[in-house]
Amino acid sequence: MDPRTGLPVVGMVGAGQLARMTHQAGIALGVSLRLLAASPDDGAALVAADVTVGDFRTYDTLLGFAQGCDVVTFDHEHVPGELLRKLESAGRVVLPGADALLHAQDKRIMRERLSALGVGIPRWAPVRTGSDIVAFAGGRWPVVAKAVRGGYDGRGVWFLRGPDAARPLVETGVELIVEEKVPLVRELSALVARSPFGQVAVWPVVETVQRDGICVEVLAPAPGLDGDRAVEAQQLAISLAAELGVVGVLAVELLDTGSALLVNELAMRPHNSGHWTIEGSVTSQFEQHLRAVLDYPLGLTTPLAPAAAMANVLGGGINLDERLHHLFAADPGVKVHLYGKAPRPGRKIGHVTVLDEDMDRARQRSRAAARALSEETT
Amino acid sequence: MDPRTGLPVVGMVGAGQLARMTHQAGIALGVSLRLLAASPDDGAALVAADVTVGDFRTYDTLLGFAQGCDVVTFDHEHVPGELLRKLESAGRVVLPGADALLHAQDKRIMRERLSALGVGIPRWAPVRTGSDIVAFAGGRWPVVAKAVRGGYDGRGVWFLRGPDAARPLVETGVELIVEEKVPLVRELSALVARSPFGQVAVWPVVETVQRDGICVEVLAPAPGLDGDRAVEAQQLAISLAAELGVVGVLAVELLDTGSALLVNELAMRPHNSGHWTIEGSVTSQFEQHLRAVLDYPLGLTTPLAPAAAMANVLGGGINLDERLHHLFAADPGVKVHLYGKAPRPGRKIGHVTVLDEDMDRARQRSRAAARALSEETT
Repeated sequence: MDPRTGLPVVGMVGAGQLARMTHQAGIALGVSLRLLAASPDDGAALVAADVTVGDFRTYDTLLGFAQGCDVVTFDHEHVPGELLRKLESAGRVVLPGADALLHAQDKRIMRERLSALGVGIPRWAPVRTGSDIVAFAGGRWPVVAKAVRGGYDGRGVWFLRGPDAARPLVETGVELIVEEKVPLVRELSALVARSPFGQVAVWPVVETVQRDGICVEVLAPAPGLDGDRAVEAQQLAISLAAELGVVGVLAVELLDTGSALLVNELAMRPHNSGHWTIEGSVTSQFEQHLRAVLDYPLGLTTPLAPAAAMANVLGGGINLDERLHHLFAADPGVKVHLYGKAPRPGRKIGHVTVLDEDMDRARQRSRAAARALSEETT
Repeated sequence: MDPRTGLPVVGMVGAGQLARMTHQAGIALGVSLRLLAASPDDGAALVAADVTVGDFRTYDTLLGFAQGCDVVTFDHEHVPGELLRKLESAGRVVLPGADALLHAQDKRIMRERLSALGVGIPRWAPVRTGSDIVAFAGGRWPVVAKAVRGGYDGRGVWFLRGPDAARPLVETGVELIVEEKVPLVRELSALVARSPFGQVAVWPVVETVQRDGICVEVLAPAPGLDGDRAVEAQQLAISLAAELGVVGVLAVELLDTGSALLVNELAMRPHNSGHWTIEGSVTSQFEQHLRAVLDYPLGLTTPLAPAAAMANVLGGGINLDERLHHLFAADPGVKVHLYGKAPRPGRKIGHVTVLDEDMDRARQRSRAAARALSEETT
């Protein structure tokens, strides 16, 4: 507890945009958010009061950081599991715990566990050699290779179009799995929060639109999704959260093949597919994550508008301040979230959300807004 | 501009709850908020990265603080006008400017100006002696005495029930005005934002409920307010903002006598009567204040629900963390805002907002929530 306020201190490892938006939610709850940042220029470090700059791969740094925190949680999944287990053994509260988080850190273990639970996933195999990949493909290319650990936002994922692509990848020494490339209708995401008590709260299932492996757009709720299918996805997210012992927000990324929902990836933290909840839901994923890790009863996830569309701002070399003037004049209803990052081509520097009565219009408006903030000036 | 982000630096004098909530809005806009706090334990100082602790009544402190800020604005109205004029002469951008702000700082000048503009206000007079007060009352007690400068939240306001109360007050040496006690139906507030360009945006007129001179409850929109009367209040707020040259948020506190609207007080900053806009409006008063002082086009003020009710949390000696558990279990839809203040009897330590389809229910829920967080444990 923070003696200045009588309210909890939450430590968050990582100080990127997720920590930045968690801080906004924490301010309302009276939570004192302590950040372990990689750099003083990290997006959340620019705006938070209690920032430690240090290496999350060093146990002493983690232990020192955790002192005085009521709970330690995460803005990313890169903290080595063995360090988290040591922290837990030292009596620190780490949520999600190391055993749960492992399933968001290690794609092989996640797939083994989901298979054991009978959850639908694409056909997959661990591979060590180019021959393993060729054998897995069985002549049906492309296949998808994924780094077992450490990938995100399109990094650590490779579409292999034939045997020639397999060998150079294996030679990098990265531990890999391969997956069949599933014929896709679209991608969905089911977001749930779970508390230590076991309470769960699930948001409407959303559609996520990817480009080059990066999420560019989220539509909430997923347009035209059959009601039974939506419930199936929500129940899957709830049961996975319980089975894996997740505390906090769990994002279940789903592949919709038209005939089935297959789990693609898991994330155990606030997730890009839930940014729309800041404006679009009674309780945002950031507030809910804090409520969950603090074992507060969870908040309502009711949507506040028939349609919400979120688009990521992928930044070029732009005059962002000037762009904001134009955007706000063009659409006074768009909600902008900037992450405190200097614009660089392709870098995710923010997102925009639009609530509307109509999804097509919400989508057009959010796309136009993201484009207005993203484009190169020439 | 902040070289780390390419986006503006806004300096805010004062680091209380208004600055705290402005910081939340600024994080989304990418604004770097710099605070001049009276103490490192001020509510906003606990959660912001860029905090100077210093005395806002010292010119050198203000000037040093203003260096590198694109604009300086305020969380309170207590900065002496002559220091603001000096800052402006030194080329710093101060918004609202000293000439506008004067009307929120000096109750006598405000009344003189509003009278000159033909705006309805209660009958009033400046007073120096007990005899002045007695003469003003003309036998019709009570009358309301107000300190010309420095009052807020019920401080600096006295209801005088007879001649005996007049003399001791005058003897304190505080510069005073007196006003007739207007027969009231209720109090209203019209909130508007204005940019340097001259754009204005007005929110729905709200009802404010006071107890012991402190706002305890805000209902948005004001229940049963006649449409023409609401437009009259909004147009009054807009014209006052323009006449006085306000930049940023202007709150016009109104006395509804049933037959007329009279101006009670002006505030030139985000205001307690606008806290409901955080959840209840497309653009919150805090975001709008930042947009206004930065001369960004203003955001939509459309409400997001038919009814919003806000209740202040006036704190006793309570275990706030335990209270939050109970409250969140009792009403998972209530939105809580805590200000980082240690609970003390009567101290405004936070507020709660409820959106609902029905105003009576919104009001009941927000009252119950505020009570749950406020009550003494026994």
